[in-house]
Amino acid sequence: MSLATLYLNSQKDRRLKRGHLWIYSNEVDTKRSPLKGIEPGTQMRVVSARDQFLGVALVSPANLICGRLINRQDAPFGAELLRQRLQVALALRDASFPEPFYRLVYGDSDLLPGLVVDRFGDYLVVQIASVGMENMRALIVDALVELLAPKGVLLANEHSARAMEGLPLYTEVAYGEVPDEVPLIENGAHFLAPVRKGQKTGWFYDHRMARAQLQQWAKGTRVLDVFSYIGGWGIEALVAGAEQLVCVDASQNAVDAVYANARLNGVEDRVETIAGKAIDVLKKLIEEKREFDVVVLDPPAFIKRRKDQQAGEAAYRHINELGMKLLADGGLLVSASCSMHLAEQALVEIVHASAWKRGLDARIVERMGQGPDHPEHPAIVETRYLKAIFARVFALAR
Amino acid sequence: MSLATLYLNSQKDRRLKRGHLWIYSNEVDTKRSPLKGIEPGTQMRVVSARDQFLGVALVSPANLICGRLINRQDAPFGAELLRQRLQVALALRDASFPEPFYRLVYGDSDLLPGLVVDRFGDYLVVQIASVGMENMRALIVDALVELLAPKGVLLANEHSARAMEGLPLYTEVAYGEVPDEVPLIENGAHFLAPVRKGQKTGWFYDHRMARAQLQQWAKGTRVLDVFSYIGGWGIEALVAGAEQLVCVDASQNAVDAVYANARLNGVEDRVETIAGKAIDVLKKLIEEKREFDVVVLDPPAFIKRRKDQQAGEAAYRHINELGMKLLADGGLLVSASCSMHLAEQALVEIVHASAWKRGLDARIVERMGQGPDHPEHPAIVETRYLKAIFARVFALAR
Repeated sequence: MSLATLYLNSQKDRRLKRGHLWIYSNEVDTKRSPLKGIEPGTQMRVVSARDQFLGVALVSPANLICGRLINRQDAPFGAELLRQRLQVALALRDASFPEPFYRLVYGDSDLLPGLVVDRFGDYLVVQIASVGMENMRALIVDALVELLAPKGVLLANEHSARAMEGLPLYTEVAYGEVPDEVPLIENGAHFLAPVRKGQKTGWFYDHRMARAQLQQWAKGTRVLDVFSYIGGWGIEALVAGAEQLVCVDASQNAVDAVYANARLNGVEDRVETIAGKAIDVLKKLIEEKREFDVVVLDPPAFIKRRKDQQAGEAAYRHINELGMKLLADGGLLVSASCSMHLAEQALVEIVHASAWKRGLDARIVERMGQGPDHPEHPAIVETRYLKAIFARVFALAR
Repeated sequence: MSLATLYLNSQKDRRLKRGHLWIYSNEVDTKRSPLKGIEPGTQMRVVSARDQFLGVALVSPANLICGRLINRQDAPFGAELLRQRLQVALALRDASFPEPFYRLVYGDSDLLPGLVVDRFGDYLVVQIASVGMENMRALIVDALVELLAPKGVLLANEHSARAMEGLPLYTEVAYGEVPDEVPLIENGAHFLAPVRKGQKTGWFYDHRMARAQLQQWAKGTRVLDVFSYIGGWGIEALVAGAEQLVCVDASQNAVDAVYANARLNGVEDRVETIAGKAIDVLKKLIEEKREFDVVVLDPPAFIKRRKDQQAGEAAYRHINELGMKLLADGGLLVSASCSMHLAEQALVEIVHASAWKRGLDARIVERMGQGPDHPEHPAIVETRYLKAIFARVFALAR
């Protein structure tokens, strides 16, 4: 197989040379190599303006990010390299976790751009975000089966990024059998992840380390878990000795799953769930003068794109101000954000301002981020997105 | 007691109003309130250019930071407020740690600028960095004795910042008795801290959480602890199951203490110590083709002032490049910096570049910082200084 060449504009090789994988469409020398007419998902040789070979990319000609390097050798990417990458990814997770519950493949960080694989013991849930990876579907499933001998592999391809690649949305078993709910263990707590009907792959492994940190401080506390989904934060806190848990989520299915998961761990007698819009429920709890020792705010991304920046920051501010009002003196606020566009420091400032405005002092006692199964590629800032700010909030004679 | 007034220049009240405590000498309206002639350590009312009262500050007229707010009420700071602040500081630590080994007072973050107190069970080690606090020495010792009934309080006032305040350097028992070495427990390991002859207060509690993280990944590993001091990182790794430890420190006293501490934990048969300059020792280990699964680099601050920035960054780069060469494939690099002037992202880039240069991939699996007994005041960026980047480094077919 001989590959066609994609020429970059002058200077546009720099980011790639430092380790990044992405090529933006305005970086392509479209006079030498027009993007028009290229079959989506094609592998192409990427070459600098000075004719230096940089690597082989999977090309998505209609996308703003029109290419992602998949091989720095001058050869097509195929089964052998895919197998090697998966082996390294597996070794990296095995070095971090004693049990087979983690994100096995985290896209760019594992040099597999456009591919995500979550492992739930014997079951694998795969998300494909680019046409280049979609074309290698069969190869990917084969390699995973060879590597891990799973009971089932599910393609959960409902991600909105697929639209930009012209890909259809679907959920489909690609190998073996996959039940609607698959079991997992995280920080000593048991859960059933709704891999077909839940959010994303059914579970959010990314907050694992932060949840473990919360467990250390959970004993005897009253916990409010806002945007709880199926109860990750709250139930792990209960298992670690929290006294009481209130979970809030907009989805009735999610709060039903909280109960089911609480029962799995024998802690259902300490759980209260409320289905409703977070802001409305928080206001109602404030009216009722409820008080908590721990308030966890783990909202969906309020800033999905740069243009949402201002409105998104306001939304984070609002939710933090409300959460703050429900916190007992000396209580712990866990304020999270999965918006890549919200800087960690901006979130710290939102937490501070929310407290300061009410005459309270907040002190940051931990800054947590995504766990080691979502490793950060240090040359690709976009691989770092998750924040969980732990702050103690108290009234201090200033 | 009626306090004299310190007037600020226009706009210079903003930082204070957002929660910061510091006043720089060029922010003072010296026409209305000359700094000359003010007795060092005096309490003064701080007032904005528009005559708004802002708080009471301890004034150090000859220092660049010429004042630090100590009270936002219009009243002198005294025993009562000191007692309240110490109580809150204690509550904050008790909420985080089950055992009485921690930094009890962390200066500005506890609204006690210029004061640091480390607690080693029944013993307290106090560091005073400003003349205002020095004047309140007796008050501080009394309040600590009343609060905690310690067996002894040591003033370890050897800090270089004291020179700028015109304060003498001394170490002195201020209450009860204090042995030369006091016991402490951290993450399940036992140590003796040389509170009189060691560095700073004798121990560095700030890396506690990062060391706990290392313990989770220490089992069966060969650990190299560079700039080991008395063995905090390494011995805690051994206690968690590491197979082998090599500690490197420039001070013979420090490496002798590593052995003593290893014996305390019954792990001395797995310890090798080398007294020598880190760079020289690392080069020698590289020549000998030694290999480690974990390399910890926890150097002293290479960037103490802004003017050291370039040389300091080069020093971090050098040490990281050397450490990288001793790491086994898939090994864990723990790269720390206590330089407030080195941004966390700059350290991440140094780690990346050190690996990339050698054809290796580094992935950040944790970014750790100072523990909750060094709480960050979110309005005072200077209260955040510590970084520990955990990276897995491996050879990946790119």
